[in-house]
Amino acid sequence: MALPVPRIGRLPSGARDAITDVAGVTVGHATRDEGDVQTGVTVVRPHAGDPYLERVPAGVAVLNGFGKSVGLMQIEELGVLETPIAFTNTFAVPAMAAAQIRQCIAANPDCGRALPTVNPLVFECNDGFLNDIQRMAVTEADYLRAWSDAGEAFAQGAVGAGRGMSSFGLKGGMGSASRVVAIGATPFTVGALVLANYGRPEQLTVAGDAWGPRLAAALGTLDAGPEKGSIIMLLATDAPLDARQLRRLALRAGAGLARTGSVFGHGSGDIALAFSTAFTLPQRADAPVPAVALLHDALLDPLFQAAADSTEQAILHALWRAETVAGRDGHVRRALCDVLPPLPTN
Amino acid sequence: MALPVPRIGRLPSGARDAITDVAGVTVGHATRDEGDVQTGVTVVRPHAGDPYLERVPAGVAVLNGFGKSVGLMQIEELGVLETPIAFTNTFAVPAMAAAQIRQCIAANPDCGRALPTVNPLVFECNDGFLNDIQRMAVTEADYLRAWSDAGEAFAQGAVGAGRGMSSFGLKGGMGSASRVVAIGATPFTVGALVLANYGRPEQLTVAGDAWGPRLAAALGTLDAGPEKGSIIMLLATDAPLDARQLRRLALRAGAGLARTGSVFGHGSGDIALAFSTAFTLPQRADAPVPAVALLHDALLDPLFQAAADSTEQAILHALWRAETVAGRDGHVRRALCDVLPPLPTN
Amino acid sequence: MALPVPRIGRLPSGARDAITDVAGVTVGHATRDEGDVQTGVTVVRPHAGDPYLERVPAGVAVLNGFGKSVGLMQIEELGVLETPIAFTNTFAVPAMAAAQIRQCIAANPDCGRALPTVNPLVFECNDGFLNDIQRMAVTEADYLRAWSDAGEAFAQGAVGAGRGMSSFGLKGGMGSASRVVAIGATPFTVGALVLANYGRPEQLTVAGDAWGPRLAAALGTLDAGPEKGSIIMLLATDAPLDARQLRRLALRAGAGLARTGSVFGHGSGDIALAFSTAFTLPQRADAPVPAVALLHDALLDPLFQAAADSTEQAILHALWRAETVAGRDGHVRRALCDVLPPLPTN
Amino acid sequence: MALPVPRIGRLPSGARDAITDVAGVTVGHATRDEGDVQTGVTVVRPHAGDPYLERVPAGVAVLNGFGKSVGLMQIEELGVLETPIAFTNTFAVPAMAAAQIRQCIAANPDCGRALPTVNPLVFECNDGFLNDIQRMAVTEADYLRAWSDAGEAFAQGAVGAGRGMSSFGLKGGMGSASRVVAIGATPFTVGALVLANYGRPEQLTVAGDAWGPRLAAALGTLDAGPEKGSIIMLLATDAPLDARQLRRLALRAGAGLARTGSVFGHGSGDIALAFSTAFTLPQRADAPVPAVALLHDALLDPLFQAAADSTEQAILHALWRAETVAGRDGHVRRALCDVLPPLPTN
Repeated sequence: MALPVPRIGRLPSGARDAITDVAGVTVGHATRDEGDVQTGVTVVRPHAGDPYLERVPAGVAVLNGFGKSVGLMQIEELGVLETPIAFTNTFAVPAMAAAQIRQCIAANPDCGRALPTVNPLVFECNDGFLNDIQRMAVTEADYLRAWSDAGEAFAQGAVGAGRGMSSFGLKGGMGSASRVVAIGATPFTVGALVLANYGRPEQLTVAGDAWGPRLAAALGTLDAGPEKGSIIMLLATDAPLDARQLRRLALRAGAGLARTGSVFGHGSGDIALAFSTAFTLPQRADAPVPAVALLHDALLDPLFQAAADSTEQAILHALWRAETVAGRDGHVRRALCDVLPPLPTN
Repeated sequence: MALPVPRIGRLPSGARDAITDVAGVTVGHATRDEGDVQTGVTVVRPHAGDPYLERVPAGVAVLNGFGKSVGLMQIEELGVLETPIAFTNTFAVPAMAAAQIRQCIAANPDCGRALPTVNPLVFECNDGFLNDIQRMAVTEADYLRAWSDAGEAFAQGAVGAGRGMSSFGLKGGMGSASRVVAIGATPFTVGALVLANYGRPEQLTVAGDAWGPRLAAALGTLDAGPEKGSIIMLLATDAPLDARQLRRLALRAGAGLARTGSVFGHGSGDIALAFSTAFTLPQRADAPVPAVALLHDALLDPLFQAAADSTEQAILHALWRAETVAGRDGHVRRALCDVLPPLPTN
Repeated sequence: MALPVPRIGRLPSGARDAITDVAGVTVGHATRDEGDVQTGVTVVRPHAGDPYLERVPAGVAVLNGFGKSVGLMQIEELGVLETPIAFTNTFAVPAMAAAQIRQCIAANPDCGRALPTVNPLVFECNDGFLNDIQRMAVTEADYLRAWSDAGEAFAQGAVGAGRGMSSFGLKGGMGSASRVVAIGATPFTVGALVLANYGRPEQLTVAGDAWGPRLAAALGTLDAGPEKGSIIMLLATDAPLDARQLRRLALRAGAGLARTGSVFGHGSGDIALAFSTAFTLPQRADAPVPAVALLHDALLDPLFQAAADSTEQAILHALWRAETVAGRDGHVRRALCDVLPPLPTN
Repeated sequence: MALPVPRIGRLPSGARDAITDVAGVTVGHATRDEGDVQTGVTVVRPHAGDPYLERVPAGVAVLNGFGKSVGLMQIEELGVLETPIAFTNTFAVPAMAAAQIRQCIAANPDCGRALPTVNPLVFECNDGFLNDIQRMAVTEADYLRAWSDAGEAFAQGAVGAGRGMSSFGLKGGMGSASRVVAIGATPFTVGALVLANYGRPEQLTVAGDAWGPRLAAALGTLDAGPEKGSIIMLLATDAPLDARQLRRLALRAGAGLARTGSVFGHGSGDIALAFSTAFTLPQRADAPVPAVALLHDALLDPLFQAAADSTEQAILHALWRAETVAGRDGHVRRALCDVLPPLPTN
């Protein structure tokens, strides 16, 4: 029987211990499990409406900008996202961006004409070890399938964009978690969703314990190669924060990441984005902007703690919920739970 | 007979007064002139080799990040570009990024496997007034066509990515210019290439003269709408500058832009990128990094002046070399030279 | 008789054509005119209260970070300023920062204990040509004198921090201007205050006209030296903007600066800060944060135009309102109005 | 007998396990231990020469910009530091900046005249719990004393700028460590020096172990207050890195910080600066710039690991080498080693 996943920190989780504990947020996957093609798409919808019309405040923290995600520049300028959030493999970014454009046009026939063009938001990691990434197999239909699949309950591990990802020489992929804090008498939730594709075996640190050396031994790896992965860390919260505050929140995902052994390796695109569901900002210039009482910055520490803890927890979930996957050219990534027996129960 | 284009500043130009005065730089276009489809692709090759293997030092200045260009985050992190530089319309970005990926894989079969994935670099403006942008008509074949077309001599105006662009209520598009400066006894060239798609008529300033009010009158426009355009400003130089210095150089394109009447409007993605041809940096970690003696920062002022002047000149070239274009739904943008007669010869 | 100062753009000014047209903003000077000591302090108070307790939303744009101003990092993180805004010479920054600290402690005995420390905000340019800057003559008492002097009416030119500054080989210093725009039916004011100490004679551009070559000739200067100055551009507005929007506004001061001939020279610290008086944010974490309906970003263009125009106008005011000053070692900077006669009346 | 300090990671240290293992780097202190005044200055000299003339490549990473350090803007623009690096308390920053200015003028009589002004570099944390910070007791003479004291051997703990600092409810202060890595056949050293003044007791994590809850119990603290500290993390290396690469290195100090339990709290100015001793860049524009072969970015991972590990180790050294200090109004911070007995030996 597999080890239970360690619990990070002392904050309580929401009902699902997942990003969908933030009300309104839904997640869907399209998984491509077809021999040498082991990849997919994951879509996060920040709310049930059209984010192009009702834009969501968001902030970005680039810990290591070795990556090909698209959409961040405009978010940094305007402080809003305006599409669902897509995750996929590096070479599928163009197809997902095209899908978002077409989806927006279909819903908003004035997009790019009377209304501005839309800003696709697509995150990526390189799943080329397990997936024949050069085949560029992910399609716009996959995006729509993931979008349609979005719900509050969703799978984690080797699914969606996580299908072909690797972490610490193990199978990586999608993981999620949440934490709930009280600020004054008001509870707020921070939810994290990660696409984990980073880390060398000898770096793995689980809840503070250096599992790396034993893992490296168990894998029989002489994994002398450099970091080639990436991790995308998405945070959602129902706390009323603006773009500046959300950038601050996003950065704290990096604290959770560091605790797992990452030093933000050169080749790892380590990127965090945080958004708030507390209010939306209208696309149309003639629509009223809501009057929002933001949280005082001096009250943000519990949210920062929740961001770090939920990110670290989400990474562990990605490792624990993964299954062993065989893919391109017979490459295999074993799941942590399949490698565990050689590890001491600690 | 049309007015001669005013000359900006007191620095001399290179032989072509174009970005290709920087040795090794070539430019090519693929133009789509098909009724409602008035758009295209322009490709700049920084050198004759494969930029994925021999990467080019580069720096970015985002004056207004309302835009959907891709590839900038990694350039800011690593200080190099590694693909040809593509320009196109906003909704064609995914197709161009896909084309760059496929081109890189074709030339480098290990791309995304033993070697890192490639970072597409695609700039865009919205040509939706003249072009049926929603049709997403630009293809990967267009990219390859533009790439193959690259040479030292190249057309300006309503060609390539400039085909459907508008500026100041006039036909905009591609423009280029160059300036030569001496630092000590050594001459250096700065070349500019712009994709001009910005500006309201009343803002137009030509070589310091406020042409805007008269232009607005001549156009009979009640162009009360906000800025919806964008401008991409590309600078090349043979001066030995690193990424930090090139970011500084790129920002000075904004000074040239401002002199034409722009205030970096909210809706205008105003983005500058500068690269140096003085040296390249190898993709492979085991290749030797060249020992470079950079220019002292205190000597950069002539290059800054050249960056501003060549950018302003390139914008004027875009306006002067444009032709009147009719496109989507009968929309017409007249060329400056066709509107000029009502203007005093000043 | 001196030439009238050219008027920039088509927007109307406020009653004073000065930053104090933004209600609540006051400006004061302390001038040190003592032979080799030609320097001073200028203080801007964003409102009549204590900005440490009632903090002001603010954003920063660093066009060229060759400068020693203090306080910007925290403003970028928290989006507020919490002291009066001080301007002085480069080597007087420490004395002004100390003065702000002591002033804050005097008013808030818990500062640095139960309450956070205070973030001094001091801008500087190097007035070492006219002023014996090495003497470090400006005192904390000068700061308090300038602070006490703050009012809606204030002098411009060779006063306060502007006493020893030079621009374009002429006497520079303090200048101010304002512009009023309507967004919907609501009027908003943007006020600019500059400390102008930048520019080589041959670069001077006045309302689009290249005065540089004639000025250089008139000055008989072989001013081959690089840019060594700096310019600080302060913008105030009564429009409800948050820190992100104010950073965007601040950047547009750079458009006004560029129109005067600047290319943001290497040696010139070109820094802009914008603040809003529409609301304040409390220092104390237990105080309620106001619910603010910000302006929609798509409505910002008139404010951007006002920022550029008022900055350019303020620079002209600094030049026109300066007087000839003799200082250190017999150095003299002549005022534009004293050099003008050799210039054609254009 | 106190517990031995845990050793972080698997990389070897230099001879001193201190920042002075990077050849040429020296550290000195001036400590003020006078009842209610418990504070001081620490100075790091990057090399034995005058850094104003021989400038040192440097990069900055601001993890949380709630802080009053001065000098960072210019370093971000120019990529060099040009003074010794000073650490002190928040309200002593002006005095230290003034001391650096006067020191530079004394050594370079043209500073601020024919040569540019100098950019003071002063880092700070708030030691107001133990130190009567409002007294502003640190003097320019203290700076010179610390500067004169600089050597390869130096004290850690409650000395110099660390005298009054607190961390995790314990006595904090100065700590240092180093790590040595091989890149190819070449050994490089990364040294860290921290001024630790951050962290709530319940957050303390030592080598991955959550000591926080037990520490909070041992301290009998109901330390419900927010983070009010700060940490400055200085990295030195002999690897040939430029400013862009050094910024990347500096950010990795944040990974080491996060492992100790920090989530980069709102009120904590968490700032890292990295510099290289491999080459210098001349102040004078007419001096030759050295031709440097930088390390390939793809080889940086060992240095990133060393940055994180040495930072974490330096923080532990700060805690372990501190002594219990009594200061302002009878406030006492006990050293970890004095609180340890109640902790299990783990």
